[in-house]
Amino acid sequence: MSRRSAVNLVRLGTRAASLLYGNPLRRVHTAQPVAGFKPEKVAVVTKTTRYEFEQQRYLYAGLSEEDLTQLLAMKGSSYSGLLERHNIHTSNVEHVVRSLRREGMEVRVVKRGEYDEEVVRWADAIISAGGDGTMLLVASKVLSNDKPVVGVNTDPERSEGHLCLPVHYTHAFPEALGKLCRGEFRWLWRQRIRVHLEGTGINPSSVDLHEQQLSLEQHSQAHRITTMDSRRRTGTLHDSFSKTSLLPIRSLNEIFIGESLSSRASYYEISVDDGPWEKQKSSGLSICTGTGSKAWSYNINKLAEQAVEEVLQIGKSQAGLDVPLHRDIIEKVTDEYNESLVFRPDDTHLLYSIREPIVNRVFSSSRQRGFASRVSVRSRCWDACMVLDGGTSFEFNDGAIATISMSEEDRLRTVVLEH
Amino acid sequence: MSRRSAVNLVRLGTRAASLLYGNPLRRVHTAQPVAGFKPEKVAVVTKTTRYEFEQQRYLYAGLSEEDLTQLLAMKGSSYSGLLERHNIHTSNVEHVVRSLRREGMEVRVVKRGEYDEEVVRWADAIISAGGDGTMLLVASKVLSNDKPVVGVNTDPERSEGHLCLPVHYTHAFPEALGKLCRGEFRWLWRQRIRVHLEGTGINPSSVDLHEQQLSLEQHSQAHRITTMDSRRRTGTLHDSFSKTSLLPIRSLNEIFIGESLSSRASYYEISVDDGPWEKQKSSGLSICTGTGSKAWSYNINKLAEQAVEEVLQIGKSQAGLDVPLHRDIIEKVTDEYNESLVFRPDDTHLLYSIREPIVNRVFSSSRQRGFASRVSVRSRCWDACMVLDGGTSFEFNDGAIATISMSEEDRLRTVVLEH
Repeated sequence: MSRRSAVNLVRLGTRAASLLYGNPLRRVHTAQPVAGFKPEKVAVVTKTTRYEFEQQRYLYAGLSEEDLTQLLAMKGSSYSGLLERHNIHTSNVEHVVRSLRREGMEVRVVKRGEYDEEVVRWADAIISAGGDGTMLLVASKVLSNDKPVVGVNTDPERSEGHLCLPVHYTHAFPEALGKLCRGEFRWLWRQRIRVHLEGTGINPSSVDLHEQQLSLEQHSQAHRITTMDSRRRTGTLHDSFSKTSLLPIRSLNEIFIGESLSSRASYYEISVDDGPWEKQKSSGLSICTGTGSKAWSYNINKLAEQAVEEVLQIGKSQAGLDVPLHRDIIEKVTDEYNESLVFRPDDTHLLYSIREPIVNRVFSSSRQRGFASRVSVRSRCWDACMVLDGGTSFEFNDGAIATISMSEEDRLRTVVLEH
Repeated sequence: MSRRSAVNLVRLGTRAASLLYGNPLRRVHTAQPVAGFKPEKVAVVTKTTRYEFEQQRYLYAGLSEEDLTQLLAMKGSSYSGLLERHNIHTSNVEHVVRSLRREGMEVRVVKRGEYDEEVVRWADAIISAGGDGTMLLVASKVLSNDKPVVGVNTDPERSEGHLCLPVHYTHAFPEALGKLCRGEFRWLWRQRIRVHLEGTGINPSSVDLHEQQLSLEQHSQAHRITTMDSRRRTGTLHDSFSKTSLLPIRSLNEIFIGESLSSRASYYEISVDDGPWEKQKSSGLSICTGTGSKAWSYNINKLAEQAVEEVLQIGKSQAGLDVPLHRDIIEKVTDEYNESLVFRPDDTHLLYSIREPIVNRVFSSSRQRGFASRVSVRSRCWDACMVLDGGTSFEFNDGAIATISMSEEDRLRTVVLEH
């Protein structure tokens, strides 16, 4: 985080500021040597490939494999293409599993649908075999900060794999195992987000957005009215309104709060580090970790070269700034701006971003983005949700209050291999 | 549109460029004097106030007015506040209606739920009494380009009213009527968007997002599978896949295409002015008119002062400049940048914006925003929709192709009163 970001740090104390200033993002801690790590029992959690998904989806509808091929072709997708990616993933999984067994480890291969707390308890370490989405799923059931999780990107051509080991190890997994054994790595404890929920209109049951692919829509409004109606009849209308509950989920990337329907504006109030409540109208609110600062938050905040070029052009004519505007200068400025949006996964701060604020006569302007230790949000939405890591969704309607913070005990233990 | 936006015009021909360069946005055409306009039959379409909505919602659940008051209070809303806004709206509507009747016009007051094509046929002119949302609804049923529509903002304290007459006339409607009678106004034909749909996975039935407030979620996936299943059984699986249909709706503001669920990334391909298809992954795609360039598109593209300041700071240090950046310079640059996002309602161009592009190893970077006469989009989405003016939603899933364009016959006839 560079000095110009001083403007972003107005709410942080000195200690936090020096943490961000004093430790440039890309310097790796040269920590003391780590003891070798050789787990006895390893769970390998595998993703569902698109091929498997389409099979389930259309076989559910009673279509034959022939129909499926035709259907995909008509839509411009290739059945054989999906099968090819599926096979690539499967063979990469087999490579990982063989490598583990050769080292004498006991391996359990678990599909994402079968992955649960029992698997987590059984394993000494868990390997995510898929992409970033699979890593998020794996992390979501690891609630302690001492169970190591390692991600392997099983389709490097299609998947970014930010949370996975460098793609080199996908086909050379024994190398990764060797480094782990010999202690040629360091632990990276990734900070995660916890959420306290209180107020009215809460339905503490959640929806798994990935599992629900086949019947995504929920009658959440009707459900809520039914819930309130039954509470009224049983006389518990008042009692249930003031309990605060800590959600049993931790976010590795971010919490996103907003109207479920992508086309509707979200109304809410936000209080940063116990500051005054401010009304906001925007297309949503993102609160992310250092890990998540490279994910959705990054895409919300980053600027395209086109926008940077125009700002610099206007700046030149308005301020008489004599900034040369060659393509490479514009690229450099764009890259530097975008890089400043990313911070360290082990940083204890949250980054909140008010996505597409609607500023007009009615709603006041405020900071669009900033760091905090704690963010409280009060919903004023019709039909909103709080989405954790793009995968688990909680209702978050008018009156509900979420308090978002971090705690050391929630950290996720991951590895960074030495070069 | 200022000269620096030359970079935005690379795809336009000379004629379009001169249209945008030669006609600064804020200059009003000094057209020849307009004949006075005095309609005999005027329909006044009124919005549903939040008070009315909450009443319907909770009475539907069997709650009494007392329960409703308590419920709202517990959520931090004020029953009396909602009632007050409702009364303000109602009295403003009465003011408009009285003014019209005093001029000898026949007036029909129609709630938004009762407003249909028969009302449009009956009326010589239609007044929208509400906010911008009500104007969009009113416009949506006026498909000819010769029926005048006038918007009156019935709650200026709460509503922006971009599409309505200046707030002054809300309490002085006879003045507006006077100007219309004496021809002290000009016609503004606002260009609108039309959509052709083809390909697989189309469900041409639409969902009215406002009407569906109480049961918003749809089993769209299940519906589609059912539709395909029945087509398969009747042997029409192939036939229905290649028909192109012109949707019976016109957008006054914009089309938004993207995954229905706000947290999911959208995959699609885009072709601008019959150019090559480009794969995109982003949080959605907005295609707007000049009218809409002040609405959602504006919020997607505008920059906060915080971002502009940081870009200018980085630009300065990259170029080795040490010129202080005063707050008012930052404000001016921000305002000028944001103003360049807006163009004239009678402009025949579309502005497309790729919202939050996800650029990485897998997806290539491209122009994030630009003008066009025609945009084609092919869906690669799981469960996406095409939302017209934030109010009507069509399914738009994997394989469907939408072609978005404009036609003179779709224009909406509105008024701009003289000062």
